[in-house]
Amino acid sequence: MENFSQWYSEILERAEIYDVRYPIKGCGVYLPYGFKIRRYTLDILRGLLEERGHEEVLFPLLIPEDLLAKEGEHIKGFEDEVFWVTHGGRKPLEVKLALRPTSETAIYYMMKLWIKVHKDLPIKIYQVVNTFRYETKHTRPLIRLREIMTFKEAHTAHATREDAENQVGEAIDIYREFFHELGIPVIISRRPEWDKFPGAEYTVAFDTVFPDGRVIQIGTVHNLGQNFSRTFDLEFETLEGGKDYVYQTCYGISDRVIASIIAIHGDERGLILPPNVAPIQVVIIPLLFKGKREIVERKAEELYKLLKEIGIRVEIDKRDIRPGRKFHHWELRGVPVRIEVGPKDIEDKVVTLYRRDTGEKYKIKEEDIKGEVLDLLERIGKNMRERAEGRMKGYITLLDYKEDTSIEEIVGRVKEILKKKRGIVLIPFSGKIYNEDFEEKVEASILGVTEYNGGKYIAVGRTY
Amino acid sequence: MENFSQWYSEILERAEIYDVRYPIKGCGVYLPYGFKIRRYTLDILRGLLEERGHEEVLFPLLIPEDLLAKEGEHIKGFEDEVFWVTHGGRKPLEVKLALRPTSETAIYYMMKLWIKVHKDLPIKIYQVVNTFRYETKHTRPLIRLREIMTFKEAHTAHATREDAENQVGEAIDIYREFFHELGIPVIISRRPEWDKFPGAEYTVAFDTVFPDGRVIQIGTVHNLGQNFSRTFDLEFETLEGGKDYVYQTCYGISDRVIASIIAIHGDERGLILPPNVAPIQVVIIPLLFKGKREIVERKAEELYKLLKEIGIRVEIDKRDIRPGRKFHHWELRGVPVRIEVGPKDIEDKVVTLYRRDTGEKYKIKEEDIKGEVLDLLERIGKNMRERAEGRMKGYITLLDYKEDTSIEEIVGRVKEILKKKRGIVLIPFSGKIYNEDFEEKVEASILGVTEYNGGKYIAVGRTY
Repeated sequence: MENFSQWYSEILERAEIYDVRYPIKGCGVYLPYGFKIRRYTLDILRGLLEERGHEEVLFPLLIPEDLLAKEGEHIKGFEDEVFWVTHGGRKPLEVKLALRPTSETAIYYMMKLWIKVHKDLPIKIYQVVNTFRYETKHTRPLIRLREIMTFKEAHTAHATREDAENQVGEAIDIYREFFHELGIPVIISRRPEWDKFPGAEYTVAFDTVFPDGRVIQIGTVHNLGQNFSRTFDLEFETLEGGKDYVYQTCYGISDRVIASIIAIHGDERGLILPPNVAPIQVVIIPLLFKGKREIVERKAEELYKLLKEIGIRVEIDKRDIRPGRKFHHWELRGVPVRIEVGPKDIEDKVVTLYRRDTGEKYKIKEEDIKGEVLDLLERIGKNMRERAEGRMKGYITLLDYKEDTSIEEIVGRVKEILKKKRGIVLIPFSGKIYNEDFEEKVEASILGVTEYNGGKYIAVGRTY
Repeated sequence: MENFSQWYSEILERAEIYDVRYPIKGCGVYLPYGFKIRRYTLDILRGLLEERGHEEVLFPLLIPEDLLAKEGEHIKGFEDEVFWVTHGGRKPLEVKLALRPTSETAIYYMMKLWIKVHKDLPIKIYQVVNTFRYETKHTRPLIRLREIMTFKEAHTAHATREDAENQVGEAIDIYREFFHELGIPVIISRRPEWDKFPGAEYTVAFDTVFPDGRVIQIGTVHNLGQNFSRTFDLEFETLEGGKDYVYQTCYGISDRVIASIIAIHGDERGLILPPNVAPIQVVIIPLLFKGKREIVERKAEELYKLLKEIGIRVEIDKRDIRPGRKFHHWELRGVPVRIEVGPKDIEDKVVTLYRRDTGEKYKIKEEDIKGEVLDLLERIGKNMRERAEGRMKGYITLLDYKEDTSIEEIVGRVKEILKKKRGIVLIPFSGKIYNEDFEEKVEASILGVTEYNGGKYIAVGRTY
């Protein structure tokens, strides 16, 4: 993609996903088509969370100033970007209220009321809400927002450090599976100390690479240890009758997952949607020839019903415009499968299928339609995932060095790679490199420490 | 119910629906069980809206001051209760931002960008969001909130006045069906001029009566005419090539529908949930006798699988506590059907069913379980609806008067009814009565004009 940034802006508008023209910087509107992609994406995430015992809740947006400020590290990490409500009607409020930048403080205040003894644990809850950051950097639709419209945050509390550690593992598994479902390849790394979540013991992050070669963080998992539980006095009676503070974790996913679905899979002709989140999985286009109109329309309806029956999200495009325009319309919107219905095919008892991911067009026997479409949707999902993984591999460069290679030389080589090829550079771990000093020198971010083919690497890249 | 207000507060806490202990007045937390009731309720509403061509969208929370103030009547209706964001980080904002009290101004600003010609119409969109009112009155959980956590607002735009009028009809049908599904009886009335939505031509409202005899508004439909479209310059090219402003409607439902499900159907022992929104529709309680444990547990699992297969939300309560405590636990939470599994029943190849709405307990042949449970859930929904309608009838008093009856006498009689029996008084329509003066005299609200058994009445009641 020659100019990803321009392509991305245009596709949001042309495929009717998200309208950026709202009169506040960093705030926009999810349009019906974009909203449906969001809905199906959240369905997958909710399913994965609930299978593993997470329960959905809903907390207030507003957080009193004193509550937000309770955990020292946490508030330091956020205070420059909090929106403040100061007035109700015409009167100043007695206590300033923050628009949640994230909900730890709101949720842990309530957990205090819910946790007395070990039997009350674990607690595993999540919510999908809007959160707010007064970003001073350049905002980007669905990537860097002032109103994050989709923030799935999970919060857990456990009786032991080991349980919390296991929960981090479960969260990583959930996100790994989630991104797998969406065909989004990821590098999972443990963020450096200086870049962890404010208030966490450590942070594990999921990054992917966009077609411009820049790295984007699309999910994070935090082990909070007892940092918050001590601050919020989340003490409980242990199994042995003693007292301890709970061990906590939290993990989040945002609108960036929608941005990634768009960015990772799209091509010059528009979106290519993974079948499991496509608002329309199959579109039927009747090819209306003179005198054959009725027979074609009847067949289109028949196929529609057959596919609807087996739970496929199918539409017939009945508009009175040329087929070519319809093809273009639905390709732009990333519909995975197109069925063309014409008189010749009807006569031959065949159906013409077109798959958006490869552009391949082929005929099958009409009687095989149900099985073939289900199978094709599977294959498309798989192919999209493999293709994206292939591209991701192309963006990863292993940089080897010898014992006596100077830092300056390593810096030089990293900078060159990030300039030419971009993506992520993996450097075999060394304390000499793993520091903020190196980060400054390479003018890129140390994403953290990651495992790759069994080795321990420092991952470096230019981030969004 | 002797003290409804106390019962209501207690049930929210004990059935784990909504936690009021959040440290901001009028803001609380949807707990997992309450959240699920909300989810299934919204599923029904979304289904009804989408069947009729409404598409879900998502707009920003924040509205710039100048935008909110654009429609004169509208802002007058809200300005005393708007929360204002004035700071981002430590800096004052250039333009104050309102937390949406409702989204007309945000949405119609964007509609201006979407509407050019008649082919762009109608637009029928909706969103489910949080909205904010700085209430100075006494707040009540899910009834009068500062953060309305569940606000379903639909907004439509049409090419003709007639289309908008028809849309009002469709919206009324949707809400009527929605409340029917939930077994919540309603009186539908056209609100008086002095009580319509700020900026509307007229408002149609849905009211129900709570067990304390007080009336509560639970849904509204507004015909906005061209009031907003002129202000927001929503001009379009008509079919005939002329210019006109669009005709608009909007309609809303809030957390009050959850409050109503709880209030209308509950009894002294707790919730009674309509089967279609019950998070658990059937709970299986194994009665574990010595030496029979295994056979009972196996049967419980078997019944669980059978019911799960046909899509019923079923749980087995395997906790190691006495059956009596389990019965109580699930009755409090309003689970519609309980199945008790004991060794004697297993021997006799029967199953014992208990229905929460009537307290009736009976046995059926084990082989009939699937059909019987499905049918029973239907019957429970129907019975709950009829019972609620019966109660509602009891709360409606027709007040007749003669040509020469004085206003003072009518006032006296209305006051007496509202004191003794409460509920809604229906008075045959007369201009002498239908005014704010009368409202003041009876110290109650004129809900509006309604049809009842073919007659035209003024409805009066004390409202929440």
